Amino acid sequence: MQDLVAFAHVLADASGETIRPYFRSALTVSNKAAGGAFDPVTAADEAAERVIAAAVAERWPDHGFVGEEHGETRPDARYRWVVDPIDGTRAFIMGAPMWGTLIGLLDEGTPVLGLMDQPFTRERYWSDAAAAYMRTPDGEQTITTRPCAQLADAILSTTHPDLFAAGEEADAFGRLKAQVRMTRYGGDCYSYCLLAAGFIDLVVESGLKPYDIVALIPIIERAGGRVTTWDGKPATAGGRIVASGDVRLHEAAMAVLSG
Amino acid sequence: MQDLVAFAHVLADASGETIRPYFRSALTVSNKAAGGAFDPVTAADEAAERVIAAAVAERWPDHGFVGEEHGETRPDARYRWVVDPIDGTRAFIMGAPMWGTLIGLLDEGTPVLGLMDQPFTRERYWSDAAAAYMRTPDGEQTITTRPCAQLADAILSTTHPDLFAAGEEADAFGRLKAQVRMTRYGGDCYSYCLLAAGFIDLVVESGLKPYDIVALIPIIERAGGRVTTWDGKPATAGGRIVASGDVRLHEAAMAVLSG
Repeated sequence: MQDLVAFAHVLADASGETIRPYFRSALTVSNKAAGGAFDPVTAADEAAERVIAAAVAERWPDHGFVGEEHGETRPDARYRWVVDPIDGTRAFIMGAPMWGTLIGLLDEGTPVLGLMDQPFTRERYWSDAAAAYMRTPDGEQTITTRPCAQLADAILSTTHPDLFAAGEEADAFGRLKAQVRMTRYGGDCYSYCLLAAGFIDLVVESGLKPYDIVALIPIIERAGGRVTTWDGKPATAGGRIVASGDVRLHEAAMAVLSG
Repeated sequence: MQDLVAFAHVLADASGETIRPYFRSALTVSNKAAGGAFDPVTAADEAAERVIAAAVAERWPDHGFVGEEHGETRPDARYRWVVDPIDGTRAFIMGAPMWGTLIGLLDEGTPVLGLMDQPFTRERYWSDAAAAYMRTPDGEQTITTRPCAQLADAILSTTHPDLFAAGEEADAFGRLKAQVRMTRYGGDCYSYCLLAAGFIDLVVESGLKPYDIVALIPIIERAGGRVTTWDGKPATAGGRIVASGDVRLHEAAMAVLSG
């Protein structure tokens, strides 16, 4: 396990070096959505995924790989790396720092380690078998979620209100928002890490892909939090996700989201 | 003028040192809103304003001072420093980096220099008589806004959709949002600096106080942008604010906002 954690750091170092020169430079933004919806993919995203995939193939040739850009290899492998080089592409193209590189590892389908790297602020969040950690330019420390038993005391974060489909989904989020102490938008992967570090209490999103969440699951769980779908199923497949720093809050949030 | 710019940097260095230890630590959050609305004020905010006000009083005893926490002194002075130690308190208490220290200088009521400092990411944006500048851990450079003639090509940022009062104000913002390429929430002062640096095109907000905007006006203007109220008046008094990197976009945005 320590070999695998160390290797995740090597991947993050390499991807950070690849991505950093693109951030806040003129960007090549292509539109990968066939239907014309705005879905930016940067040259940095593609370049970093190539670097990470090549490093995995060289060091662990029998491991599988799931990337945002290039799909899946060795889907039957015991270990599979699940990677999103730039989670939060909208923040990235605006020059804002709230995006990150997600590197997760599945063991027979179960997330066993995760890492989020922010190359601009030089922050990194990760887990091993025992705990979750945060590293900033000021130092490294173990992180834990904070207690928060009630929605009325909770700080809620989500990436964008328009992620929720009009109707049942947006109504469910609206009910939750009406009960919490404070809601803030604009988080992407960064919000889940702030939750793991005990700065916010609740993250609720919809429409996530596996590579948006797999790396974050072990970080949240090792820090003492819980992350599932809105109806309590494993978060590994993505979809509608709720993450909480306090298990009591998780129950309360799921009750509100399910109507 | 160079003395005043150099002094603004001294103030930012001192406030950053004061604020940094509070960020992501246990915070003393009091509630200054009489009506019970959630309006966090941190110990850091108050401590930094004391440090800045004392430094101004010592170096420029005949200058005025306008702070968020302690009100106004020497309102008749030719030069008045306008300061918000933590613009973006909500981001701050969530552990997110999109807040900043705002230090502006009025000369007979006209903003003549501005500075925004982000002590966690070690970023600083400022203006002198000639230009606007950005400093990051990777270096220092002159910044300019980017051309963007049409709303259909524009990236729009605002701090929170709930800042707009239901009815006329929210409707006006909704019309604008429907015409731009992309909208993102969660910016505070950081968004105006990203606009000055040419990463986003439009910032629209409501309910700003003078200390929320005075320091940002010269940064935006020296970078080539424009910032006014929604009806084209000087932004100095706050209120409903629209900032654009491109003057053509400013006209288009004002036309939509005024209905």
